[in-house]
Parts: sequence; structure tokens; C-alpha cells
Amino acid sequence: MATAADMDAMRRAITLAARGLGSTSPNPVVGCVILDATGQQAGEGFHQRAGGPHAEIHALRAAGHRARGGTAYVTLEPCNHTGRTGPCAQALLAAGVRRVVYAVGDPNPQATGGADTLRAGGVQVERGLLADEAETGNTAWLTSVRLGRPYVLWKYAATLDGRIAAADATSRWITSPESRADVHRLRAEADAVVVGSGTVRADDPQLGVRGIDGATQPLRVVVDTGATAVRPGARVLDGTAPTLIAVADDADSAHLPEDTVLRLPRAATGPGLDIPALLAALHERGIRSVLLEGGPVLAGSFVAAGAVDTVVGYLAPVLLGAGPAALADAGISTISQALRLDVTGTVRIGPDLRITAVPVPARKGN
Amino acid sequence: MATAADMDAMRRAITLAARGLGSTSPNPVVGCVILDATGQQAGEGFHQRAGGPHAEIHALRAAGHRARGGTAYVTLEPCNHTGRTGPCAQALLAAGVRRVVYAVGDPNPQATGGADTLRAGGVQVERGLLADEAETGNTAWLTSVRLGRPYVLWKYAATLDGRIAAADATSRWITSPESRADVHRLRAEADAVVVGSGTVRADDPQLGVRGIDGATQPLRVVVDTGATAVRPGARVLDGTAPTLIAVADDADSAHLPEDTVLRLPRAATGPGLDIPALLAALHERGIRSVLLEGGPVLAGSFVAAGAVDTVVGYLAPVLLGAGPAALADAGISTISQALRLDVTGTVRIGPDLRITAVPVPARKGN
Repeated sequence: MATAADMDAMRRAITLAARGLGSTSPNPVVGCVILDATGQQAGEGFHQRAGGPHAEIHALRAAGHRARGGTAYVTLEPCNHTGRTGPCAQALLAAGVRRVVYAVGDPNPQATGGADTLRAGGVQVERGLLADEAETGNTAWLTSVRLGRPYVLWKYAATLDGRIAAADATSRWITSPESRADVHRLRAEADAVVVGSGTVRADDPQLGVRGIDGATQPLRVVVDTGATAVRPGARVLDGTAPTLIAVADDADSAHLPEDTVLRLPRAATGPGLDIPALLAALHERGIRSVLLEGGPVLAGSFVAAGAVDTVVGYLAPVLLGAGPAALADAGISTISQALRLDVTGTVRIGPDLRITAVPVPARKGN
Repeated sequence: MATAADMDAMRRAITLAARGLGSTSPNPVVGCVILDATGQQAGEGFHQRAGGPHAEIHALRAAGHRARGGTAYVTLEPCNHTGRTGPCAQALLAAGVRRVVYAVGDPNPQATGGADTLRAGGVQVERGLLADEAETGNTAWLTSVRLGRPYVLWKYAATLDGRIAAADATSRWITSPESRADVHRLRAEADAVVVGSGTVRADDPQLGVRGIDGATQPLRVVVDTGATAVRPGARVLDGTAPTLIAVADDADSAHLPEDTVLRLPRAATGPGLDIPALLAALHERGIRSVLLEGGPVLAGSFVAAGAVDTVVGYLAPVLLGAGPAALADAGISTISQALRLDVTGTVRIGPDLRITAVPVPARKGN
């Protein structure tokens, strides 16, 4: 039976873990809190970046000798393998921790087994405290482990009548400064930001994170099948962050910097590239979470490929009555084929509404 | 300074008033609570239907002799004129009420002056308690008095990407049974339900209130400019409620029951009828609130005419990627002309979201 102190410590560990979002891939985000033998907080930490120390190591360093006889709260099962850093289970044993409480088991076959190691070392191990909250905080990484491809969050901004621009293509600004700032938070939490050729042609976006101190800039990915949208001098090539231009195998990309070009097969049906191949290529590069920013045609391809894990819609209280819709052809022609979602959250962001929804489980992967 | 007892009594009066929504036009909804001289509730009532007793009369009857020396709480200034029922100000004086608290002044020049009459009779009169709440409860009627036309609430139901049907026109059911039940509540609260010819052709709707005991059936209005959509045998002609088919002056409506036909001028620009003329004709028939149910073309005409006072959108967590949008041409071609709204409420209705919004004041009547 978890005490209030247990809950408080794990909740703090979950909050700490979230600070790593966007900079730990291919690793998960992890937070750790250590209480000493008397129940006082002795140390805390989180996994900050791949190759750097795990959360437990940060927390143990901060706790020092006070870890002995104490309790460690970790959002994910402590690892058991020696990767770029030593196994955390051994470090916890060496520090003399008496009890380890973790929220979520490690699904990674290379890393699992930490709990067994700890138990074998005489440590009292408990699993599952605030597991749902911890899983939510690690959704992107857990999804990528489960599906073997990056987690995809599709973000759109539209009017109440579903338009992303007016009839004459003007769109600045449909949503509010508050919503646009929130999108920069999403970018900061993602490993890669993906847009299509239409968006590049219309907006020449830079796709960087602005306004968030210390944010890791995500990989910028443009799906430019025919290699006709990104021209030399495009803002997405400005060198402030890495960029990939995904083009068809047969496209002429001589005008693009060679190190930015990612060659992929075309989609078997419909326009554009093969989405699973794109995601596989990104996964191979260590990308575990993708923010899909549009436009509607690319979003339609992702929906058609069953490759949208979460939808975040910013709805502005505006009516237009004409103009392009947020989502174009997704291979759905009749109502029974509609992609049905569960709304998991709605928040007012300035004058706008942010709606978060996930495909209903039975449909996932369809 | 209002006491907690004053607030409680007025809040109860506002709740009572709402029971009259949909059945009091051309009168407002009004609720009344009477406390006796010791502060105990002695009677309550609400205006149930035009031609029937006003709220104060119901409450005075219930209170009997206990009204003497007591306080009456009324959501609207007691009337001063003798219409189909006697003036309430006189009735309150005759009953010996010592104090009258009302929320909102009567803007109707024929009825105003009740407060003065009461004061002249020695009654202590206070105005403004919970005025905002009471005004909200009477929005439709107050709007109709202010604008000289019925209040218009536009309701739509759409997917997250703004579609009201799939590419093949199938649409059953985008929103949930809970949302559809909520729409019947809106119908019950409206004096008239208005749809366009496209909706009649696609759905042959009956447009009645179902599932709400004792509801007053609204007037059913079809905007059938060319008199080609409503055919003999259409469900909207089933006789369960009055129906008007609004057709163009020059349309051939020989196939329609003569008493259902409303002849109106065509719109000066764009398709369909002249919306202000339609609303004037409805106002003349005592209609003070209209529920505009669609479809997108008719809604576009209302938006273009500046004749939408409130928008209620039922958003289903569904993605389609194709199909008609909730709002068609509203005469808006560029983003600076967009109709901007304020969101006044968001509620989860079953799996759906209901968003309520009103045009920002500077734009109202544009």
C-alpha cells in the first residue's frame, strides 16, 4: 500500500522525467527521487540526453551517502545492461538503497531484468505506483518500442468550420499567439518535425523551436517527393538544426545539399512517399517521436497509413465558410470507415481550444 | 447588499424561468420566488406560455396571504401594462408585498415602468441582482427585442476536421446519441427550427422534438427557394407541428399545402432567399428564437447576413479527410474578413465536444 509520501515522491519523479522530453531519444525519459532512511528527500535527477547519465545516477550522486537504507522512486524499471553508462540496478545496489519503487516495467528486452537483479541483491522492489501517469509521460518512447517506428503526433490549427486558411490562401493568424507558443513546446518535446511540400511552398517555414530556453532543436524533415518544393535558400536549410529532405528514389535532387537528402520509395498507392519507409528511416536515425505539422495532404497520407498516434487540434473561434480543410484524402470514402478517436483532453489556450485525441484502440494500427 | 437568501431566491427564480424556454414567445421567460415576512419561501412560479399568467401571478397565487409583508424575486422587471393578463406591478401591490427584487429591466417600451409603479405604491424596489445570469437565461428574447428580429442559434455537428458527412454523403451517425439528444433540447427551447433544401433532400427530416416530456413543438421552417425540395409526403409535412415552406416569390408551389407556403424575395446577391426578409416574416408571426440546423449553404447565407447570434458546434472525435464542410460560402474570401467569435462554453457530451461561441461584439450586426 503506497503512502502519501510514496505518491509525492513518484509524482515528483514523473515531473522531472518530462524535462527530458525531446532530448533523450533513442532513450526514454526517466525521473528519479531518492528519500533517505528517515523519509527525507536526499536527491533527485532525470535523464537529460542519450549518452549522459541515467536518472538514477543523477539522483544517487545528489544523495551521496544518504542513499544508504533509503528508497529510490523511478518512473521506469532501472536498467540492467551496460550500455554507454553502467547498469542502474548495480548502482542502486552499490549505494545501499533498501527499497526501489518503479512505475512502469522496461519493455526493452536489452534493458529489462533490473528488478530481478535488485531483488536478488536483497532490495525490496515494488512496481506500478502511478503507472498510468508515468506511461503517459513516456507515451512517445513506449509507443516507439511497441510499434518499432517513431510515435507520431499530428498537430493542426483550424477554424471552427475546419479550415486552415481562407479561400485566397491567407492564414495569418488563424490561431492565437498563445496557441503558437504551445506548438513550440510540442516541437521542443519532439525528436523531429515533419511537413510536406505544400507547407514549404506556402509558408517557407523555419521549423525551429523559438521562445523556450535550452530547448533541443528537433530534426527538420520535409517530405518533398518530387524534390521541387525546397529550393536553395529555403529557411529550413538555414543550418540552425539538422534537416532531412525526403525525396522519391527517382527525383532529381541535385540542387539540394547532399547530406540533407533522404531517398525513399514512392507510396504504392496515392501521392507522395511510402510513409512506413519514411518512419523506418527516421527510427533508424534514433528518432522516437515525430511532430507532424502538415499540411492536409501529408496528414491524409499518415492517417491512411495508420501512422497517427495522437491528434492535437488547435481550434480557433473563427468561421470562414471557404478554404482548405485541415485533413485531405485519407482513403476514407464512407462513414463506416471513419477514423474514430477518443478525446483525452480539452484545454482553453488563450481564445482557442486545444483538443487532444487518440485513435480508439480497436482501430490502432488499422 | 444582497444576502445569501436573496441570491438563493433569485437563482431559483432564474432556474424556474428556464422551464418556459420555447413556449412563451413572443413573451420572455420569467421566474418568480416569493419569501414571506419571516424569509420562508411562500410561493414560486414561472411564465409558462403566452396568454397564460405571468410568473408573478403564479407565485402570488401559491403564496396566498403569506405574500403580505414579504419579498418577491423576479428575473425581469414586473410588467406595468394590461395585456392579455393584468399588470403584475398592480398584483404585487394588491398582495401587500413589501419589497421587490428584480434582475433585469424590461426593455419593452410597452411593458416598462413596473418598478416606478411599485415605488409609487411604497414598495422597496431593487434592481440588478444576478443580472448577468438572468440575461443569459433570456438571451433569445432580449436579443429579439434589441434587434427586432428573432435570435438565431446556428447548430452544426461535424468531425474534428470539420466534415458533416463522408465523401459518399453518408453521415449516420457522426455525433453520438448524447449529442443528438442535446439537439432535441435545443429544438424544445426554440420557437422555430430552420433548415435548407439540401438538408430536406438528403435526410427528409421530421424536425420535431423527441424524448422531452411536455416539450412545445417548434414551428418547422424549410427554406426551399425554388420549391423543389419539399415534396408531398415529406416528413416535415406530417401534421405533428406547424410548418412553413419559405419559397421565392416566383416559385411554383402548387404541390405544397397553401397554408404552409411563405413567399419571400430572393437574396439580392448569392443564392437563396433574402434572410432579413425571412427573419422579419418569422418575427411577425411571434417567433423570437430560431434554431438554424443547416445545411452549410443556408448557414453560409445567415453568416453572410450577420444573422447568427450564437454558434453551437457538436464536434465528434472522428476524422474523415473528405466530405462537405459544416459551413459553405459566407461571403468571406480572405482571413481579415473572418467572422471572429468568443468561446463561451465547452462541454463534453458523451464522446463529443459541444462548443458554444458568440460573434465578438465589434462584429455583431456586420
